[in-house]
Amino acid sequence: MTRLLKLTLAYEGTRYAGWQRQKKAPTVQAMLEQVLEKILGERIRVVGAARTDSGVHAEGQVAHAAVQSRMPASTIERALNAVLPEDILVRSVRVARPGFHARYSAKGKLYRYTLWNSPVRPLFERGRVFHVPGPLNLRAMRRAASLLKGCHDFRGFHSTGRPVSSTVRTLRRICLRKRGPLIAIEVEAEGFLYHMVRRIVGLLVEVGKGKVPPETAGNDKPFIPPTTPAKGLCLVRVRYS
Amino acid sequence: MTRLLKLTLAYEGTRYAGWQRQKKAPTVQAMLEQVLEKILGERIRVVGAARTDSGVHAEGQVAHAAVQSRMPASTIERALNAVLPEDILVRSVRVARPGFHARYSAKGKLYRYTLWNSPVRPLFERGRVFHVPGPLNLRAMRRAASLLKGCHDFRGFHSTGRPVSSTVRTLRRICLRKRGPLIAIEVEAEGFLYHMVRRIVGLLVEVGKGKVPPETAGNDKPFIPPTTPAKGLCLVRVRYS
Repeated sequence: MTRLLKLTLAYEGTRYAGWQRQKKAPTVQAMLEQVLEKILGERIRVVGAARTDSGVHAEGQVAHAAVQSRMPASTIERALNAVLPEDILVRSVRVARPGFHARYSAKGKLYRYTLWNSPVRPLFERGRVFHVPGPLNLRAMRRAASLLKGCHDFRGFHSTGRPVSSTVRTLRRICLRKRGPLIAIEVEAEGFLYHMVRRIVGLLVEVGKGKVPPETAGNDKPFIPPTTPAKGLCLVRVRYS
Repeated sequence: MTRLLKLTLAYEGTRYAGWQRQKKAPTVQAMLEQVLEKILGERIRVVGAARTDSGVHAEGQVAHAAVQSRMPASTIERALNAVLPEDILVRSVRVARPGFHARYSAKGKLYRYTLWNSPVRPLFERGRVFHVPGPLNLRAMRRAASLLKGCHDFRGFHSTGRPVSSTVRTLRRICLRKRGPLIAIEVEAEGFLYHMVRRIVGLLVEVGKGKVPPETAGNDKPFIPPTTPAKGLCLVRVRYS
């Protein structure tokens, strides 16, 4: 009998060419499938909630997999963490309800982008932040963020690469928190366009530097913002109903 | 005219065979000297306050160097951070008072050892913590720590390797702080024996596991504690009068 498993995982994306399986580069999906096959002795395909890009991290990626094995979920969880490389961690393995789909059942995703705003470059944090050495006007950035909140056409924040039927998305939440040199930008939506979070952050940084006014965020034909580096981005959580 | 410079540095020790120059392995001292020579165009020898071991990190190592160059200290600081690899960071370069010696002028050193106390292994923190999966009795550990405070013969905490005239040392401060899965153990003294901090932590962990009673810390002929891994250790600060 086939069981459907729901896996919640964290990973440091630095060494991987993203989530999705590729022919010639190591990916998190491929590593997870390979280790699951080793543990369960059967061919496994996992489907992830988000196809995180090369270098992007995750604290709460979710994946599902159909398995024949009768091994208890808690045993699979322990075995995975014993065998997976140290930059991938399984937070939980549970039996999912029938019909559960990691991507299509998802009701929302929360990403966090972290800036390191200091003239001095980061040391221990360097793999997880984007360094902005000059001063940033946080108030202007928050003003721009408030204009992005809600339902808008985000075509200016879409990198081509994957065709989409619509570029309208709803930003449920966008907030900026500062603690020392760190500025965390949290963004939540049901779905995102390709590179959308990194371009939103790109716009906020330009606004923070005073290069464009906060109102740029509310324009119909917005200024095309730069895409900030992948290493500052982390998939925090996937929400299901 | 020769000037004496005081450099304060932070580094991630993972890639280095410790502070001190070695013939065949990369060290922080060698890297710093090499980059300083490149910037100043003269032969440079730096002396560090502490010879941190292979894999040990630093947030506030101090070194001195005598230089002929008239380049302003602030320029040297910027140039160093532009050229040094990303796992070494210079926090400041200042002109020191005549006679200053990074090691001999030091009045105290503060180290922090970090445990990751959770059944789940660490992910992003893995290079800077020592994982202890089972439960730890923090109260017993604090009791043992209180017995180690003050002036004692720490011969049981000394790894051979460097001969010393006396194994008596004064622990000015030892404190344990818990935040989530992290337990930070801070230890301050004028001087430490070889591996002393890592053996103090080794004893505290054995006490925390209930393998030895807290009173072991106060014994004249103590149980020889295990040496915890280097990656959990960080030189936080060197104090001068």
